[in-house]
Amino acid sequence: MRLKMDKTLQINGFKAAAVKAGIRGKDRLDLSLLVCDRTAAAAGIFTTNLVKAAPVMLDQERLSSGKARAILINASIANACTGAEGLSKAIRCAELAAAELGCAPEEVLVASTGVIGEQLDLSCFEKHMASLVKNLRSDGFAEVSRAIMTTDTVPKTAVREVVLDGTAVRLIGMAKGAGMIKPNMATMLAFVLTDAALPDDLLREMLAEAGSRSFNRITVDGDTSTNDSLMLLASGAAGNPPLLQGTPAVAAFRATLNELVLDLALQIVRDGEGATKLITIRVAGAASESEARLAAETVAESKLVKTAFFGEDANWGRIIAALGRSGAAFDQLRVDIAFDEAQMVREGLGQGKAVEAEATKVLKQREFSVNIDLHQGEGTWEIYTCDLSIDYVKINADYRS
Amino acid sequence: MRLKMDKTLQINGFKAAAVKAGIRGKDRLDLSLLVCDRTAAAAGIFTTNLVKAAPVMLDQERLSSGKARAILINASIANACTGAEGLSKAIRCAELAAAELGCAPEEVLVASTGVIGEQLDLSCFEKHMASLVKNLRSDGFAEVSRAIMTTDTVPKTAVREVVLDGTAVRLIGMAKGAGMIKPNMATMLAFVLTDAALPDDLLREMLAEAGSRSFNRITVDGDTSTNDSLMLLASGAAGNPPLLQGTPAVAAFRATLNELVLDLALQIVRDGEGATKLITIRVAGAASESEARLAAETVAESKLVKTAFFGEDANWGRIIAALGRSGAAFDQLRVDIAFDEAQMVREGLGQGKAVEAEATKVLKQREFSVNIDLHQGEGTWEIYTCDLSIDYVKINADYRS
Repeated sequence: MRLKMDKTLQINGFKAAAVKAGIRGKDRLDLSLLVCDRTAAAAGIFTTNLVKAAPVMLDQERLSSGKARAILINASIANACTGAEGLSKAIRCAELAAAELGCAPEEVLVASTGVIGEQLDLSCFEKHMASLVKNLRSDGFAEVSRAIMTTDTVPKTAVREVVLDGTAVRLIGMAKGAGMIKPNMATMLAFVLTDAALPDDLLREMLAEAGSRSFNRITVDGDTSTNDSLMLLASGAAGNPPLLQGTPAVAAFRATLNELVLDLALQIVRDGEGATKLITIRVAGAASESEARLAAETVAESKLVKTAFFGEDANWGRIIAALGRSGAAFDQLRVDIAFDEAQMVREGLGQGKAVEAEATKVLKQREFSVNIDLHQGEGTWEIYTCDLSIDYVKINADYRS
Repeated sequence: MRLKMDKTLQINGFKAAAVKAGIRGKDRLDLSLLVCDRTAAAAGIFTTNLVKAAPVMLDQERLSSGKARAILINASIANACTGAEGLSKAIRCAELAAAELGCAPEEVLVASTGVIGEQLDLSCFEKHMASLVKNLRSDGFAEVSRAIMTTDTVPKTAVREVVLDGTAVRLIGMAKGAGMIKPNMATMLAFVLTDAALPDDLLREMLAEAGSRSFNRITVDGDTSTNDSLMLLASGAAGNPPLLQGTPAVAAFRATLNELVLDLALQIVRDGEGATKLITIRVAGAASESEARLAAETVAESKLVKTAFFGEDANWGRIIAALGRSGAAFDQLRVDIAFDEAQMVREGLGQGKAVEAEATKVLKQREFSVNIDLHQGEGTWEIYTCDLSIDYVKINADYRS
């Protein structure tokens, strides 16, 4: 049974707030807090970059407990490449929040986004923590979704509901990221909150799957940030019966979580720096899944392919050239390439002007897919990308400010 | 003893010509011929792209003999992704040249650059081959260097001389490539001719080395073309004593060849599509040479790093983030990064405003280097790149024409 969904950005058991804390001297909402009424089950997945920001290192350690009460998030400074001082400041920020909330410091997670290599000024946190906590409201999430933005042009939120064994549960999500970066504004951050009751090991496993199907399948510029974080907290306030592995209820929750996280991830690509189009690159018929992934990622990150998308040019030569250097095995005389339904290339050969005209129409859309079949095996992969525009260069060539 | 060098683009034993053949209907020099008076020792290295153009497939087969008389080069159409028809047309073009020159067809190499996926019109070759051969002159090389251009803004040539066991020998080179591509104008082509006498096995080995130190160390957009070719022909007309492995004469020729080929390669990066700067990325202290290469290539191809160079922004956060995702192992608290002599980062930490001002001055130069030390081992690598500019996107978003 599907309920009529309440799309309000609220969720049982959680409150939120954001304040202007003057981090890096800016007059903007830049300090946010997400808090659960009780200790929540918690999980997170983080950047694979060897260079990890201080908050990422701290959260990875704290989440080994599978529990958390709050997430403190600051914009403007990433607290990355800040050494021992940066790590002790991340710990101190969590302590300040914990003292105000009356919980253990280890139950507070932290997330930062902004300039790499600058130190946080703790006085901003000391001065504003009390008012941040005082402002906590059950309808504060929309404000948080704006307070975490950097080069994002729109806030990114999502809401889903699902009925588990007769109990309606809810998930809400907030994310930031636009490309990866504004000069040093490195980061994708995403926070998902649910009122479902579920054990933290199941939470961790489901979050890993949702991440692999979403955030690990998007690319704007191919650069991985030092701060990328996706966290999930479950309050249990919905009071559903315990979720057990292998039951239909778990499958339903998993599907809903996957859908919500993918929704947030695609919002990031649509809002990619300078992006004008959302493109799905779908590779089938590779020798293996890993070769399909290589092929899809190489096409999705090729500067030449992405500028052709921006130019609305059905330039399949660039796609086949990118496939050829991807490392995936194939016979160039068996490759098929289509833009949506327009079959531009069959068995490695262009299909002429009529199809090209049709393909060019597809490329004029805001969203389309490139469907590649290597006819080599059973491997498939799908990845989401955007075009590479003049505005991308303008945004990223601007001096840090 | 160093002679005063004659920089004229001429070489004993070779003649050249270019004509307007109307390939793809354009009124431009688009068909070129380089011819040796006798059968020359010959070697080539070619694209590693799995998708190889017809001329690349044909040349790779023909060069197994180590001999050649001529290279026929057309612009405007790449003869890539053209299937069996394309290969038979490449063979036919070589036959037409051979008939006019009076040599075996197998002694004629071919090279193409231009649009992928279109078939050559043989009538252009049939109609103009006689006049092309009739125009062959000992001073025709400069014309060829222009006839092979696509999005290049300047022709690229180089001349070197070296004395081998008392005999002066010469090398001349011509190259094309600007980035890799204009919409489907995929290709780097380079032709080196020498009057030195040397065996073809030695030629092949030396060309492989020269290529690995030059064309395999440049990147404009990270896209490898279907047509990339570097060929070397030696006429022997200088009459030097036979060159034997391990002698000082071989070392001298090798060094000269390396220098000339690197010169051509750097001309390509300087003329990279939209490029305003030539940047050398130098990685030291990696765990191995292959990890140094991974690190250098990841930095050199990062869109965020390249747009920061265009913006003259000493944005070391992007460099360290690129290093962190490169796959090279290191401890982020041991990394040093300098722009020329400006030591921006020591042990993973920024060195403040004074050094940043100095680094920003370095970035305002047309050419500079980024020197990275991972302090992990002995591996080093060096790669040449350019910035990513607004013009790069403009050039590559234009519809094929």
